[in-house]
Amino acid sequence: MQNYPSKLVENAVVELSKLPGIGRKTALRLVLHLLKEDVEDVEMFGNAIINMRNNIKYCQKCHNISDSDICEICSNPKRNENIICVVEDIRDVMAIENTAQYSGVYHILGGIISPIEGIGPQDLNIESLIKKISENNVEEIILALSTTIEGDTTNFYIFKRLKDYNIKFSTIARGISIGDELEYADEVTLGRSIINRTPYESTLKK
Amino acid sequence: MQNYPSKLVENAVVELSKLPGIGRKTALRLVLHLLKEDVEDVEMFGNAIINMRNNIKYCQKCHNISDSDICEICSNPKRNENIICVVEDIRDVMAIENTAQYSGVYHILGGIISPIEGIGPQDLNIESLIKKISENNVEEIILALSTTIEGDTTNFYIFKRLKDYNIKFSTIARGISIGDELEYADEVTLGRSIINRTPYESTLKK
Repeated sequence: MQNYPSKLVENAVVELSKLPGIGRKTALRLVLHLLKEDVEDVEMFGNAIINMRNNIKYCQKCHNISDSDICEICSNPKRNENIICVVEDIRDVMAIENTAQYSGVYHILGGIISPIEGIGPQDLNIESLIKKISENNVEEIILALSTTIEGDTTNFYIFKRLKDYNIKFSTIARGISIGDELEYADEVTLGRSIINRTPYESTLKK
Repeated sequence: MQNYPSKLVENAVVELSKLPGIGRKTALRLVLHLLKEDVEDVEMFGNAIINMRNNIKYCQKCHNISDSDICEICSNPKRNENIICVVEDIRDVMAIENTAQYSGVYHILGGIISPIEGIGPQDLNIESLIKKISENNVEEIILALSTTIEGDTTNFYIFKRLKDYNIKFSTIARGISIGDELEYADEVTLGRSIINRTPYESTLKK
């Protein structure tokens, strides 16, 4: 345990080092940086974080972070409400939106099932997904979770809960990244990309 | 430029990514972490930083960060006030204090001379060092700055300003780290460690 020359600095270091990926040394470096900034700038910094946490809203339809009750995507009449892409968090929404290839809506789970971290289905926005599907005319669910054991478990759990509804289930395509060389691809991905090969003509359409 | 789903999130991301070493992606990861924390915890987080910046004091003697007007080291009667170790910032003080090998006092410059970053001698606590030396009976100045061009420049500047006083100047020893193999040492360090070789008997005393 380090001896900090000031209780104030120690408190700030302890708080900053609670953030993921930030240890004591990095936290102290950040503290020294903040001490060189103007008082007003540091107040803006601290208050931006406090305000965000106090006033954040979640879209009542898709659970996306939003400044209003219904997020911009769900309130856009051009989006197809009958196709729902299930994702873990808003970073995935932002990544998919950046591709400009998707015109359906989203459903944000807020995490994935992870027994190790003590996250079960009841901790995620799964019941609201089931309710949404039972009450609306949803055609397709796209499962877009990470390709990890936890992601696969969550996919399977959602599939099991929803398989009696008349919906098409799909997952995002797994395969060799564009620009990658076959030689360096891992065997599982390469194997899957052969099993799930796509007709050559379909790649020419675009 | 990313499209954030919320102005509040965007603000927090922008503020967090002003910290050194934290980009937009990391900032968003930290934001998502903070959104999962309790409102009270996030308030404690933000306020710890704001309080620190608003209430921080600097020791009037050595410019170390302190909760009182004179820091614990300067107010300790067991420390030898006639030996002053000149360092860049409090991290260096903490590192040297951890060795438990030094019983003098410190003088914190608050940076080093760096024309590239626009930091000149007037931005550092150099005048107060000169004043301290002209008014007190200082025997030795230990220059303990980084071995960079900036560190060497700052060392030389201080030396030039103080060379007319009757003080001993020293720098911390440069050489091969304990546990390092000669084969992998860089030439400059190895060369210096031969020029500044120490009598073998002196290494046996401890």
